[in-house]
Amino acid sequence: MGQGFVIPLWADLSAVALGGLQGALFASGFRGQRRLDLLGVAIIGLVFGMGGGIIRDLLLGREPATLRSDWYLVTATASALLGMLIARPLHRVAGLIVGLDAVVIGLFGAFGTSKAILLGLPVVPAVFVGVCAAVGGGVLRDVLMGLPVAVMHVGSLYAVAAGAGSALLVVLHLLGVPVAAAGVAAVATTAVIRLLAVRFDLSLPEQR
Amino acid sequence: MGQGFVIPLWADLSAVALGGLQGALFASGFRGQRRLDLLGVAIIGLVFGMGGGIIRDLLLGREPATLRSDWYLVTATASALLGMLIARPLHRVAGLIVGLDAVVIGLFGAFGTSKAILLGLPVVPAVFVGVCAAVGGGVLRDVLMGLPVAVMHVGSLYAVAAGAGSALLVVLHLLGVPVAAAGVAAVATTAVIRLLAVRFDLSLPEQR
Amino acid sequence: MGQGFVIPLWADLSAVALGGLQGALFASGFRGQRRLDLLGVAIIGLVFGMGGGIIRDLLLGREPATLRSDWYLVTATASALLGMLIARPLHRVAGLIVGLDAVVIGLFGAFGTSKAILLGLPVVPAVFVGVCAAVGGGVLRDVLMGLPVAVMHVGSLYAVAAGAGSALLVVLHLLGVPVAAAGVAAVATTAVIRLLAVRFDLSLPEQR
Repeated sequence: MGQGFVIPLWADLSAVALGGLQGALFASGFRGQRRLDLLGVAIIGLVFGMGGGIIRDLLLGREPATLRSDWYLVTATASALLGMLIARPLHRVAGLIVGLDAVVIGLFGAFGTSKAILLGLPVVPAVFVGVCAAVGGGVLRDVLMGLPVAVMHVGSLYAVAAGAGSALLVVLHLLGVPVAAAGVAAVATTAVIRLLAVRFDLSLPEQR
Repeated sequence: MGQGFVIPLWADLSAVALGGLQGALFASGFRGQRRLDLLGVAIIGLVFGMGGGIIRDLLLGREPATLRSDWYLVTATASALLGMLIARPLHRVAGLIVGLDAVVIGLFGAFGTSKAILLGLPVVPAVFVGVCAAVGGGVLRDVLMGLPVAVMHVGSLYAVAAGAGSALLVVLHLLGVPVAAAGVAAVATTAVIRLLAVRFDLSLPEQR
Repeated sequence: MGQGFVIPLWADLSAVALGGLQGALFASGFRGQRRLDLLGVAIIGLVFGMGGGIIRDLLLGREPATLRSDWYLVTATASALLGMLIARPLHRVAGLIVGLDAVVIGLFGAFGTSKAILLGLPVVPAVFVGVCAAVGGGVLRDVLMGLPVAVMHVGSLYAVAAGAGSALLVVLHLLGVPVAAAGVAAVATTAVIRLLAVRFDLSLPEQR
């Protein structure tokens, strides 16, 4: 447990921005029984960009860090609005969205696990908090949109990918690997597993 | 940030009572695939009357204030039971229910924003907490009842109304307006926006 | 409020193990539109075994105790995996599952109420926290699985059974009855009410 685990604000905000973007892209592609209005799309961006971090902090018994600064909400809202504007062209490059999503899951998982270790949680709960941080935003999004919760169903491999990255981070930390390197390895592991799952049809993107 | 922002118990309990009443009225008008029993109606009243406040306190990293006194649960339960008893005649005056609902949203939003300011949150998160406090009870209610989450869908204007009231409260606070006046203005703003939305068919009450 | 209310780790872990087992059995019997994968079954076990305790601690404004030790997650996961393995033969003795479920509800309710009293909550919120701890895991499970939330619907008597046990615990505590005896009486009360409800068709097990 060292100071090295403190996540720089720019990295945290980047994850939130990517999450907000991805949430808005997802919502803009949604065609359900009842349409989402623009606000609904923005809310989904906020939920996906900030939900995992809030769940993480609740599980850690801490004040949600994303509400102690104006920047998180501003960043998530701006990126969700941007996501709405560029949704149509972006949907033509569906692969980009899947890739973005995989990286976001990896970032949320790595940051969640890091914060849990910093606060002194044992290793198993640290991995658990990382997985909840990674998939929590998506679970909240699915519940709010009345969709089947993706993480519960065959083939999504979300939780597996997040769990593998988080577990790797904990192991590398115990081995004394510097946190930056461990974090990069964890994000890469999660993203690669998720992308392989999509690539080899272990999951279809629209099943989310 | 001043002592002025402390919400008197009677005002807080009034909001909870109105929320419990409104929740029970909503539940009693519900005809879904599976019937609610009397307990279900009471639970909806509790959820709607106290849910927003509990979500507010979780987001603020505080113990839920409504569980540190016997009064909140007693008030919410009593008002929910009252709501069940008078539901049938009240449903003939649907306008009253819509009005009651608009005021409740306004009160929860104003109290949530006030508490966030008191605890030193920046202005953007303070508005966010107010909106979550205002719409949180309804979101919980919809999720528990298996309904589409109203705040996510076209035309409800709930979050817009709550956000406008909360933002006005923050601005008036920054301008040095006394809290009581700012609070009344915020509640009125939220309620009027919501009522105008209903009046001019920007939303239908049953769409909730 | 006495030291006597501290719950021994073995008792807490036993409740988590029974909950994980019961959650996995429930999930393995689930046939919805979309299949659960093995991970989904394990997640349901985790959610049902640990969800009520986490909700309890959030309502109490405390760090979730189940995340301060490796044991809870290990126990819940192991019992969920065991539940998957023995699900088929166990489903032939459906009565056992119903009985197991009734005891689990009773344990979660009694532990929740005890912890609330220990932390100095007034009696009404203490009962409320007990009920939320008892039914919270099931609510989370139903929401994640996209099922109607059992506790909201006619005939389940879950909340009633949990509330009766929790209220009895509070009354016995006020009367000075030793906590072990009060806890056993509370668990028995909840379990018996739930079993009577099932036995006399006040509820059908599959309605959960």
